Amino acid sequence: MEVFKNYRDHVPIRPGKVGKETLFESSRLLLGLNALEPRVEQSVHTHAEQDKFYHVLEGEGEFTVGAEVRSAGPGEVVWAPAGVEHGVRNGGERRLVLLVGMVPPP
Amino acid sequence: MEVFKNYRDHVPIRPGKVGKETLFESSRLLLGLNALEPRVEQSVHTHAEQDKFYHVLEGEGEFTVGAEVRSAGPGEVVWAPAGVEHGVRNGGERRLVLLVGMVPPP
Repeated sequence: MEVFKNYRDHVPIRPGKVGKETLFESSRLLLGLNALEPRVEQSVHTHAEQDKFYHVLEGEGEFTVGAEVRSAGPGEVVWAPAGVEHGVRNGGERRLVLLVGMVPPP
Repeated sequence: MEVFKNYRDHVPIRPGKVGKETLFESSRLLLGLNALEPRVEQSVHTHAEQDKFYHVLEGEGEFTVGAEVRSAGPGEVVWAPAGVEHGVRNGGERRLVLLVGMVPPP
């Protein structure tokens, strides 16, 4: 099993959609990448039984978590606990790349 | 609850030790930071029931995962599944900062 991956080798490009790529997965955790080109949006949604986090690697996203809406760039970590609605929109001019964890996997 | 954090505001400095700081925690996941100054080492150890990942944010670390030993810098993600021994040493000249997830929390 491969246990070292550079995220830059796995950025999922899907123009007009949220690109998704799994880096590592177990029964407990899915760790992967989301990539959103400018003007692409992941609609606000809720996972009843899963905690999720986003870590911004590149670009800038407008995140919704519950009642909070905030812009976040590289270095920001965003926490969307189970039952709390969340989503992200790329309103910027460059690709938004996120490290995403879902616990447990969907 | 605070759901947006910039990791740079939470880097745990503990000269000579592995600095640890929790960013977010639930019953399912602990997401936090580890910081190792030059020549600091986290000894090789194993979690029987927890998957763990490291994501290198700053610096360069020499990681052990099972039989593999490898240097990893910013952008690299390292996966240490339950039952596999793992550790990291900062052999470089600058601080090593890691985003670390443990599933479930210890």
